[in-house]
Amino acid sequence: MSPRRGDDLGASIVPGRRAVVELLRAQRRAVRSVSVARGHEAAAVLDEIEHLAAQAGTPVQVIDPERLRRDAGIEAAQGVVARADPIVPTRLAELLAAPDAFLVALDGVTDPRNLGAVLRTALAAGATGAVVPRHRSALLSPAAVKAAAGAVEHLPIAAVGGIAAALEQASRAAVWSVGLDADAETVISEISVADRPLVLVFGAEGAGLARLARARCDLLARIPMHGPLESLNVAAAAAIACFEVARHRAK
Amino acid sequence: MSPRRGDDLGASIVPGRRAVVELLRAQRRAVRSVSVARGHEAAAVLDEIEHLAAQAGTPVQVIDPERLRRDAGIEAAQGVVARADPIVPTRLAELLAAPDAFLVALDGVTDPRNLGAVLRTALAAGATGAVVPRHRSALLSPAAVKAAAGAVEHLPIAAVGGIAAALEQASRAAVWSVGLDADAETVISEISVADRPLVLVFGAEGAGLARLARARCDLLARIPMHGPLESLNVAAAAAIACFEVARHRAK
Repeated sequence: MSPRRGDDLGASIVPGRRAVVELLRAQRRAVRSVSVARGHEAAAVLDEIEHLAAQAGTPVQVIDPERLRRDAGIEAAQGVVARADPIVPTRLAELLAAPDAFLVALDGVTDPRNLGAVLRTALAAGATGAVVPRHRSALLSPAAVKAAAGAVEHLPIAAVGGIAAALEQASRAAVWSVGLDADAETVISEISVADRPLVLVFGAEGAGLARLARARCDLLARIPMHGPLESLNVAAAAAIACFEVARHRAK
Repeated sequence: MSPRRGDDLGASIVPGRRAVVELLRAQRRAVRSVSVARGHEAAAVLDEIEHLAAQAGTPVQVIDPERLRRDAGIEAAQGVVARADPIVPTRLAELLAAPDAFLVALDGVTDPRNLGAVLRTALAAGATGAVVPRHRSALLSPAAVKAAAGAVEHLPIAAVGGIAAALEQASRAAVWSVGLDADAETVISEISVADRPLVLVFGAEGAGLARLARARCDLLARIPMHGPLESLNVAAAAAIACFEVARHRAK
């Protein structure tokens, strides 16, 4: 399950204010350049970005807003984009070995903004790592990096061949896997393993958990739904589930 | 606080599969047309859309994917867009009068996808209504309607002159207002009024609650944060807070 030599997670293009300031604060990877849109409104976070870049000797260029949007690869770059070395994945075995492991695994989350949002929320809930499939899910595209708002600089991420096999490896490492599933009997606020080493498993938007990943979970849990809608957005589901785990662990 | 005559919330353009199927299921407003992209992949939800439209006598046209994206006003329309009468706001007084009132108020949420995501999650948590400022926040743009995934068809929404004044009105109606605030002493899982009539108040992304709205809240509560990031996305914060209220009410 270790990454193939040369594999990386992308994230070389870092758009957005929170994403860039966390990139510079974290100092985990080399930052090649920072570009700021000409004529942007003053903002404390932009001052901090320019200050941190100067300290690190990173060139800051002021460019045309239209060119910045093009460089950023997304519309809503908030007037700032950085270029940095790509993010190197962490080995799954390393994530599983943490005595307080609290992981999120994403099986087929294709919307990059959802991927980024899940990483941000998981980190804020105290997660210690994330597991994503190497091929099928969204990689760390500019939109994902922007939505993660800096979480990709701090949260270790393992890229695996498949989520089902990763859960098997988790089981051998005595890490419990809890799949979110609308048809589960147990509600997420009542899972008994929240303070054990665990991995929360989220399926694709719409389709939910894939059959194989579902079968590999030690436990399935649901978020109690009200009203006529059938499902939650995966980023919302992850926020609720991650903070339920955090609430249990804080006790 | 009642809406001015002629005011509406928008939402005439309804892009996205879940949004369109819920529009047709709910039958709360007249649907003028449904457009489906030529050459789309087969999907059960598209079959249901065509079936419901036929039942209602709504014309379904198959159009060029490029034209559909243009009509939808967003990139990710999932190959379907409907046109419908706009959504009419509900009076705030009506929302406040519900004996089990569970409202969400959004003060300055400018990203339409966040607005839509909050409405979707709130409805799924059992919220009975939403309160948005008439001018400053995002209206029900195509991106908001898509992200709401049908929630706008079911969740009554009041459009108010300002959130601070709306909270004053809530107070007079014996509805508790709980503001989400990173510096609050109380954590959201321990608020004592979760099973009373209440309104959860969320501030702008980044800036948080405006001074005036903050001062009008009966109670401030925070989401306990871990890790180096300073804040959550407002849609994630709303998901966590709304489902904490739901968890309390389910007891």
